[in-house]
Amino acid sequence: MGAFPDKQAIDRRMNAIAGDREHGASALARRCLDIAADSALYYPAPDTPALTAILTAQAQDMSAARPSMAPIHNLLSRWQRELQGLNGLDLETARRRAADAARAVAKVSQAACRQAALHAQSLIGERQCVITHSLSSTLLQAFTALQGRGASLIVTESRPLCEGRNLALQLAGMGLPTTLITDAQLGLFVEKADLAMVGADSVLEDGTVVNKVGTYLLALAARENSIPFYVCCESFKQRDSSMPPFEPEEMSPDELNLGELPKVEIRNIYFDLTPPELITARVSEEGVSRCRLNKRC
Amino acid sequence: MGAFPDKQAIDRRMNAIAGDREHGASALARRCLDIAADSALYYPAPDTPALTAILTAQAQDMSAARPSMAPIHNLLSRWQRELQGLNGLDLETARRRAADAARAVAKVSQAACRQAALHAQSLIGERQCVITHSLSSTLLQAFTALQGRGASLIVTESRPLCEGRNLALQLAGMGLPTTLITDAQLGLFVEKADLAMVGADSVLEDGTVVNKVGTYLLALAARENSIPFYVCCESFKQRDSSMPPFEPEEMSPDELNLGELPKVEIRNIYFDLTPPELITARVSEEGVSRCRLNKRC
Repeated sequence: MGAFPDKQAIDRRMNAIAGDREHGASALARRCLDIAADSALYYPAPDTPALTAILTAQAQDMSAARPSMAPIHNLLSRWQRELQGLNGLDLETARRRAADAARAVAKVSQAACRQAALHAQSLIGERQCVITHSLSSTLLQAFTALQGRGASLIVTESRPLCEGRNLALQLAGMGLPTTLITDAQLGLFVEKADLAMVGADSVLEDGTVVNKVGTYLLALAARENSIPFYVCCESFKQRDSSMPPFEPEEMSPDELNLGELPKVEIRNIYFDLTPPELITARVSEEGVSRCRLNKRC
Repeated sequence: MGAFPDKQAIDRRMNAIAGDREHGASALARRCLDIAADSALYYPAPDTPALTAILTAQAQDMSAARPSMAPIHNLLSRWQRELQGLNGLDLETARRRAADAARAVAKVSQAACRQAALHAQSLIGERQCVITHSLSSTLLQAFTALQGRGASLIVTESRPLCEGRNLALQLAGMGLPTTLITDAQLGLFVEKADLAMVGADSVLEDGTVVNKVGTYLLALAARENSIPFYVCCESFKQRDSSMPPFEPEEMSPDELNLGELPKVEIRNIYFDLTPPELITARVSEEGVSRCRLNKRC
């Protein structure tokens, strides 16, 4: 029999959410649901009401750990609603139902990403060149389907963690012609592209897109060069009024590897805001929705 | 008696111009004049006509080594005109005159940079925040004079060589409040600034500014955030129709330190182009000249 995760192991995985730099918002949200499922099954609790109280508090803690990432809040909120019906059940049944519910919500999220990727593909014509910024797992799915269609990609490195490097490596490995540039070369290379397409970490109530810092510059350059700027993400990334006001996350300046700089204030904000006026269309599992605020639509 | 530079030492210094990543266009142009002065004094030549032929060929080689940098072409051309009058002189007099002329041209360039810096200062009000990109030695002079005026600076790192790091260190060392950001954070921080100010490597005939890649993105973000975008450089940076068509320099991808990336094409273009429509005013030794193509002037 395999070892079940104990209290310490679950606590450790929850605590790692705040510092996770490896996963995008959707993948991290599904990781939270995976931890939640394990907690539902194995976290110590004397009875069902105590268990649901613990699971609810944990879900809130995980949401609060990454306030810029709407899907963590949205998917865990959806799961918390399922927990409300469990209090009349015996502990073992409640544990199983809560875990199943977490896995079901994760599956809905995965299906939404797949569907959004399909809609994104439909926007990329034969032999077109796409410029993108940062790494979106949904877009990676969309780009994978471009093999054999003569498409090419321009990818920015995306300082400080350079997830663009990772994306470029994966795309080139699939045989897609891939060019990797520094973030500062965005403006030079946008004119070689037919369209710009990015993912999103969150979408604010007014349609403003929160994504890896530099996205706003790509949107400005796309408009200036008259190419469309598409944002592709599943609808779980939409923030609503029940969520705390958006605050972009700032990480340690040490990540920038700039060395000792006495008296210099080094800033490392991860996300910027792209207003709907700069977005040609939003793409989600529901389809392609042209942005009415963008005068070019 | 000190050792005079020999033929090999002069050749070595000339050959290093192409690979110099440390100096901006004006400083590198003056370095070329310094080498030219040494060559005038010490390079082997049987007589005056042979000397002027050698010096002219060397000047043309140095110009061609950095085609993006107009001041190298302009200052060396100015010097070459002085060489034309030397052929009737004896070799020793011709050597001295040619060296003096090179030093005189360098002094004119230095004085022009100082004067341009003074005009740039006049555009920065008390307690204003200036955002800049890359390192311009002329702007460094202008910023130095901001001490005690409550001004603050936002500086981009400027990948790949991160000369912004060096600028930030110098500004903070003078006691100026200085913030250092990645290039991708330009769009986020431009809204905290009262004005944007950059140097230039060259200015094309139509007023388009050639400067470190990323400058165009700063200009777009400045316009979008309704802050002025000033370009400050001495008039020797102006290209004219006698020069070869502008080709931005591309350097080795190894400089980006992105490691092994099989099948990925890595690009490392140093300069981008900012059209006059995005420039509020040009600042040179002659003063501040508002750009008529910019609708906000």
